[in-house]
Parts: sequence; C-alpha cells; structure tokens
Amino acid sequence: MIAEIISVGTEILLGNIVNTNTAYLAEELAKLGCSAHHQVAVGDNEEFLKEAISVAKNRADIILLTGGLGPTQDDLTKEVVAKFFQKEMHLHQESKQRIEEFFQLRGILLTENNWKQAMIPEGAEVLTNDNGTAPGLILSVEGVHTILLPGPPNELKPMFESSVVPYLQTLSKASIYSLTLRLCGIGESQAETQMLDMIESQTNPTIATYAKLGQVDIRITAKGEHQEEAIHLIEPVAKELRKRFAPYIYSENAKESLEESLIHLFCENGHTLAVAESCTGGLLGSCLVNISGASSVFKAGFITYANEAKENLLKVSQNTLQVYGAVSEEVALEMVEGVVKEGNSDCGISITGIAGPEGGSEKKPVGLVYIAFKCGEKVKVHKYNIQGNREKVRNSAVVYALIGMRKLYMEWIKR
Amino acid sequence: MIAEIISVGTEILLGNIVNTNTAYLAEELAKLGCSAHHQVAVGDNEEFLKEAISVAKNRADIILLTGGLGPTQDDLTKEVVAKFFQKEMHLHQESKQRIEEFFQLRGILLTENNWKQAMIPEGAEVLTNDNGTAPGLILSVEGVHTILLPGPPNELKPMFESSVVPYLQTLSKASIYSLTLRLCGIGESQAETQMLDMIESQTNPTIATYAKLGQVDIRITAKGEHQEEAIHLIEPVAKELRKRFAPYIYSENAKESLEESLIHLFCENGHTLAVAESCTGGLLGSCLVNISGASSVFKAGFITYANEAKENLLKVSQNTLQVYGAVSEEVALEMVEGVVKEGNSDCGISITGIAGPEGGSEKKPVGLVYIAFKCGEKVKVHKYNIQGNREKVRNSAVVYALIGMRKLYMEWIKR
Repeated sequence: MIAEIISVGTEILLGNIVNTNTAYLAEELAKLGCSAHHQVAVGDNEEFLKEAISVAKNRADIILLTGGLGPTQDDLTKEVVAKFFQKEMHLHQESKQRIEEFFQLRGILLTENNWKQAMIPEGAEVLTNDNGTAPGLILSVEGVHTILLPGPPNELKPMFESSVVPYLQTLSKASIYSLTLRLCGIGESQAETQMLDMIESQTNPTIATYAKLGQVDIRITAKGEHQEEAIHLIEPVAKELRKRFAPYIYSENAKESLEESLIHLFCENGHTLAVAESCTGGLLGSCLVNISGASSVFKAGFITYANEAKENLLKVSQNTLQVYGAVSEEVALEMVEGVVKEGNSDCGISITGIAGPEGGSEKKPVGLVYIAFKCGEKVKVHKYNIQGNREKVRNSAVVYALIGMRKLYMEWIKR
Repeated sequence: MIAEIISVGTEILLGNIVNTNTAYLAEELAKLGCSAHHQVAVGDNEEFLKEAISVAKNRADIILLTGGLGPTQDDLTKEVVAKFFQKEMHLHQESKQRIEEFFQLRGILLTENNWKQAMIPEGAEVLTNDNGTAPGLILSVEGVHTILLPGPPNELKPMFESSVVPYLQTLSKASIYSLTLRLCGIGESQAETQMLDMIESQTNPTIATYAKLGQVDIRITAKGEHQEEAIHLIEPVAKELRKRFAPYIYSENAKESLEESLIHLFCENGHTLAVAESCTGGLLGSCLVNISGASSVFKAGFITYANEAKENLLKVSQNTLQVYGAVSEEVALEMVEGVVKEGNSDCGISITGIAGPEGGSEKKPVGLVYIAFKCGEKVKVHKYNIQGNREKVRNSAVVYALIGMRKLYMEWIKR
C-alpha cells in the first residue's frame, strides 16, 4: 500500500509551526508496512488543495490529510474533499451532540459556525475526536482511501491510534506486527556487526535498526495471515536478539524512553536518586521529573553552575576547584558525594563540563564533560569528549548520564 | 516571487526526523516577501525527485532543495538537478581544497567518495559551507533559480543567512526590510485591538502579528527601492508602536529570546538570580543556563520536587506544607525566600504546581501553578490555571516565570 501525506494550513507554509504531524504519521505508516513516496504541504487554498488531492489520487492508495477541519471559513479541507469526490454534505447528529457536550462541559458559548464541524460528506466514516470538536473522516472512493485528521497533534495522535491504525490493518490483507527492542550504551555499527548474520538472512520477519544519540532501536517486523501468526514468527528472532544484546536492552516497549525506564527501575526497587548539574543546568532533572511517577524516586536536584554554588550547596572543597578546575574528574566526584548526602538519596549523578561556545581551552576543549555516578558505596566517573554545539553537548551529556546511571545501578542491585 | 521548498531524504519520508528545515526556510522566505504555495518532501529517489523539480519549475520562480548533498551513493540531489537542467559536472578546485582542510583539521581519513561533494554543475554559483563538507549551489536557468542546501540544520541555516538571503534580495527588484518588536505579557487579541487603526490603514509598511505562548511579535515590513528607503518607511510606524507597547517590548531583535533578554538585563545591571522549581523540575534553570553568558547572573538552582527537599534545601516549614499543601501561595512564597537566601542572590523565582496527568483534585486541578518572584525586598506571587497536558503546563510555567520576573525586575530597578 502506498500512502501520501498532505498537510493543510497556511501556518505551515509560512513556517509559523514545525510540521511534526507529518513525521509522526510517516513513522506510524512505515510501522504498518505502508510506503510513503511523497509528503506535501499546501495552504488553506481550494485550488492548490484540489490539485494536491488529484495528484495524490493517481499515485497513492491512501491519502492522509491533516488540518483544515476547524470551524472557521478558512478551514476547507473537508469541503474540498467532498467536492472533489462529488459527495453531498449532511449534518451528522452524533457529532453535533458531541460538539454541544464539549462546549457545555467547558462553559464556552457555542456559535453558529461550530455546526460546520458536524457536517459530513455522504458515505464517509466518522472518527470520533475525544480531545476536540473536529471529527475525523474516512472516505473510500474508487479504491482510494482518503483520511482526514485534525491538525492539533493532541487530537490527531489519539485518533490515528484508536481509529486509523485498525482501519489500515483491515485494508492490508496481511497482518503486520512489530516488536522493538530498545538498546542503550551501544553504537549502531557495533549492534549491526553483532547481528549481521541475522540481517543478511532476513526475509520474514525483517530486522531494521534506528539509531539516535547513544541509543539503538532494533525493530523486528513480521507479516502473517493474522496477528498470532506474525507474533509467532517474531518470537524466535526476538529470543536470539535478547540473548545477544541482553546487557544493552532497556525496554521492549517502543514508546518507553530511557529516562522512563530508569525511573521505573528505581521505583520497582524502592531506591531514590538526586542529581547535581553544572553545564546541563537542570536539563537532566527536568527530563527525570517529566516522568509521571518520578516523585517517589527523584529526591532533589542542584543546579550548581557557579563555583560558589558547588561549594555552598554540594560542599565541594575550594581547594579541589582551584587545583583541578570546575571541569575535572575530582570535582565531579566531590559533586556526586555532595549530591547524595545533601539530597539524602541512595544514588546520585553529577555533571560538570564545557558546553561552549566559549570557555574551552587546548587542555579542556568545548565538549569535555565529566559525569560521576554513585550507588551506595559504588562510585564511578567517566570522561566524555562530545562534538557539536552547545545544545548538542548538553543533550548528549544528559543521555550519557542516563546510560551510565543505568549501567552502574544494574551492577549495584545485582550485588 | 513564488518559492517552493523540496526536502530530499528517505529519513524524512520514514518520519525518522522532523522536518525543521522547511519551517525555518518558509519563515525566512516570508520575511523576504517570497510567497510559498507548496512544500514537498521526496526520498533519495531519482525519478520522484526529477518529477518534483519538474512540477516546481512550472509553478515557482525559486526552488529550494534541501538534503541529499552528502558523499554517499544515496545522495543524488545535485546529480539529478544537473541532469534535469542538462548541465555537465566538473571538479571545483576551491571546494576540493576546503574538503581536504576540513578532514585534515579533524584528523579524519578522506575516502574517494568525498570528492563527489566537490563536483559542481556547469554555470552554478557555489555557496561555501563553513560547518561541513557539502557546498551549497545556486543554478539559474530559464528564469528559475534552483538553490541547493545541505540537510543538517547547523549547515543549512548559516549558509542561508550568509549566501542565500543576499542573493534573493538582489533578485527582488524592491528592497524589503523588516523590524520585529518582541512583546511579552500581552495577548495577541489585546495587542491587535491596541493597533487596529494602524493595521487597517497599512499599505507600506505592513504590520503583522505572530503569537506564541505569552509572547507576541509585531513585524513591520517595508518595501523600498533600496534598503535605506525601506528603513525610512519603517521608522515612524516603529516609533508609534514603541509608544503604544512600551511596557511589553522586551527586544527589537527578532532572534533574541525572552530568557536571553532577561539574562542580558540582569547582566547589564550587575544583578544575580537563583531559582527553585518543583513541577518544572529544572526546565527554567536549564533554559537560563543555556544562554551564553549566564554564568555571571545565574547563581544556583534547586529542583525541589519532593516536600522533603523543599524543607531541607529551601527551609520551607513543615507546618506550611501541611496546612496549605505543596501547591499553594504560601509555599511558593517560602520557597522564593529560601532560594534567594540559600542561593545567595539578589533575585529569585520559585515555581510549584500540578503538571498532571495525576495529582489534581477539584480544589487544586491539574494546571494550577503558583510562581513567586523576589527582587531585593520586593516580593510577588501569582496564581495560574494552565490548560493542557503535562508538557504544556511545564513549558507555560517557565514562560510565565520569565515574564513575571522581567516585570517585577523592571519595577525594582526603577525604584
């Protein structure tokens, strides 16, 4: 099945918003085995939209349109689709009722143009929107499945997952199922080398790797006549991969992030964590606290960017700071001792480094970062030389901190 | 002038990366007065790329192609463009030399395929790349200006600014100049109401507003025969807007963020700042420390997500926590007193709130956030009810903290 994504909205054409919907949909379509050869964005313009639909119809089986389902005159995706496929519009009672309830619940006054959102092209399947007023639509005409989704990502994503995924699965004659093993602390090329034999002999299931900073996802995808068959095909491959990559796998849930898995791991074992950050300035703390459920694990964070704060809050000695400098193994170690003590936690992480663009020297270049880890009596410190700009150095340091903590913690709890 | 943006890359089609380049280019083109009616993405595929160029050529004056300029066989943007416009490729000595230097400087071994990047279509203008090995190109054929830019944003953006903007300015017969006034602490509709007379009577210059969370940009754009004339046209309009919006304008530099302007303001006045964060967990500290030059202003940050940390690190009284709860005006006030004292700073910010999705109650719903501010003896606390998910609540709280701090600080330094 070939899919084409058409984003509708002048705010996209003007660059006022970044088109994250398209990336999301493209990734989800790929997981379902749909190929996408084209992504297109047009404004809220009847002529250009019609043209885009007409082109897509000739080269795709599935057209995914996002945006332009709002209540104002500007929003015309649904109207243009109906006109293009020569379908009359009629009022959909259930959608009308949902819109009424939505407004009542929020105590907002309904205006006449809100009914526009309850108008549905003849023969279209309505996808309910649990997070907004615009229903989604599927219109199948002449073998082309045109799917309309609302623009706001918090409406689009749940609707895609609950309604569009099952629809696309029924379209495809085969059932596609995939399992993702999430690895950290291993590079993509090393991972590939360790499973080259499996990649080379793959047919069904297929194995693909996706790398991002410090992490590699291995996605095993199988096609079967039904889901059970696909799962059955995946299992022996997953088993072999689990054996080969055991120390690196942090999750088998494609949506669980590294920080989530770390918080869950601490939670299960009833341990607590505190962090001290210099160059990352709270980025590590912020990513940990962002996990729902972090409150039982995360004890405290210290943003000790200035030397004075390292001394006062973490009891790093002035002497160590003067002799070795703030960015040193010695200071990282004193920081991690301080953070566990002052934060009153079982484990601790400290980060000190030079994020740039200023502050680097020949001996201590931009990108030099020390991260120290402490679990009970177990202490480790690592040195990193990170290439890239300030943002890259900070983000990488956070990922390395999570990976390093996971590694030491696993050793510690197995003691 | 009509422009079309074509992104090339299978990683975009698969949704492995979000296409931020297109949003950036679209916004910059709009500033230059270029209209963009279409954005397209295709994979590293000769047939589809040729087709996309052919379509764009018939509806645009400027074709911006991004990506596919790398050294591997996959990368074919330049080759397809040369073929399409029937231009021979030849080795560009200067680019060859730059590539050699780039590799030497980094001590990386050059491989044969790297020379591919120094091959240039006949008649093309070469745009030097100061941040990578792929040169950019401009090829003007039959009145269509085809511009090729490298995919990595840190290479594309500087190249666009230094080479493409001046080129596009010479193309346009008129000189376009724009000035952006950046406002905070005022809503878009209020801002528009306060300058409705000016918007309604606008011709040249034009006035447009762009809103994002808590901030409004007013962009004044003028066309003149030369830049001086355009600037001259803008000045009286800017003067009037400055008069009307004085208390809200935080910058006249379209690229200066709210946190940057705050750090610069503190820096100029020689004052220091410390922050205490609960639900935002370090997000505020991280955004402040991200500003180059923050070290002289930012004294310390405390991530006191747990009550215990609020007591131990900020000396919030157990009694206040028990009587009023962690998310309360009273706790926010004790936190801000604590952060200034423990952080040894002139000014302080404290944030405590319920980011959700759990933890809300009827009396204290998800999205309830208290932010307290202190400048010397001046103390203020504000209550916010933020709609949206966890991410939205946290991000909004950070923006409100910056806006609130700026307001109190301005009052304080004028004392």
